[in-house]
Amino acid sequence: MKKKIITISREFGSGGRKVGMEVAKELGIAYYDSKLVAKIAKETGFDKDFIAESSEFAPEKRGYFFNLSQAGMSGTGTLSLYDQIYICQYNLIKELADKSPCVIVGRCADYILRERTDCLHFFIHADMKDRIHRITHNYGLADQHPKKLLHEMDEKRQTYYRNYTLREWADRENYDAMLNSATLGVEGCVDIITSLFRKMNKEA
Amino acid sequence: MKKKIITISREFGSGGRKVGMEVAKELGIAYYDSKLVAKIAKETGFDKDFIAESSEFAPEKRGYFFNLSQAGMSGTGTLSLYDQIYICQYNLIKELADKSPCVIVGRCADYILRERTDCLHFFIHADMKDRIHRITHNYGLADQHPKKLLHEMDEKRQTYYRNYTLREWADRENYDAMLNSATLGVEGCVDIITSLFRKMNKEA
Repeated sequence: MKKKIITISREFGSGGRKVGMEVAKELGIAYYDSKLVAKIAKETGFDKDFIAESSEFAPEKRGYFFNLSQAGMSGTGTLSLYDQIYICQYNLIKELADKSPCVIVGRCADYILRERTDCLHFFIHADMKDRIHRITHNYGLADQHPKKLLHEMDEKRQTYYRNYTLREWADRENYDAMLNSATLGVEGCVDIITSLFRKMNKEA
Repeated sequence: MKKKIITISREFGSGGRKVGMEVAKELGIAYYDSKLVAKIAKETGFDKDFIAESSEFAPEKRGYFFNLSQAGMSGTGTLSLYDQIYICQYNLIKELADKSPCVIVGRCADYILRERTDCLHFFIHADMKDRIHRITHNYGLADQHPKKLLHEMDEKRQTYYRNYTLREWADRENYDAMLNSATLGVEGCVDIITSLFRKMNKEA
């Protein structure tokens, strides 16, 4: 089966975004992360920072009683700002995936595109030591309690993902491969993903 | 860093054993699974089937209050049969890893060799549908309740692993990569592992 789309979910500080950018560059296909945020901002009229934060800093226990993705996606009148953003993001991701081969990082893309058979889904993670090193040295976050910050970020991503997908974040069943960037390196992850993508498209 | 050893942990019915065998064949290195069982049987004097079952069918909630691998490994006088087998297996795996490059499937090898930097650790999994198909068509297990059987097997492997390692089975942190054989295929998993092993040894 030919593969067209690569989704990358990742732990904060794992270098997953860098993996996604390098994969897209190496394969010469589109890359969506901040570009996606800008598109959602344009469509919804909300500020870009607010859009970015809506997935990274979604409030805990939002208490959905229904799954937005399974419910109707047309009306936004009675929905919260977060839900409106999610719906816009849902439609945009589907649209972009139809358009051309691409890499999409985060924003529940693995879930939103789960029914397509032309996607490869990856999860990038790393151990705490490596993530702390990355956020302090590479991201320039001089947090006094980096471990606490990372735990909070994990929890927020879990909550956001669970709220909108009714699935568990980082559940191995949702991915073709979960890669450890601490031991394989960002470059090692990029190699595995690009090789697989090329091989599957060659074979198909 | 040059890599010498590949450990493969796997869900029952995921084809992980086949992946391990193919990887060893492809790389021309030793493969330990049933050979390991035979060696343990020879050293301990127990029956081969009993050894094989000791990891697959370890009783639930064995209630260890200490970690055997961290405790002294020399005396076996006051230990249960299961513990004696584990100690023999622990020593054998360490010895085999020292000897020559190899693939070791199961038996907590990822944990036993965790301090070596020349190992690659993989976990092979698949979705329930694929595993049911494999155990009924490839393994010839005509179980009337295959889903129940697979859940029980997962639980037994989890319990065995937790008892002897104090770690969680299938925790992504313990692996370089977790590969989905249902979507990548056994051959796809073999490709990823052999490519990575070759690349890391070439670069080192």
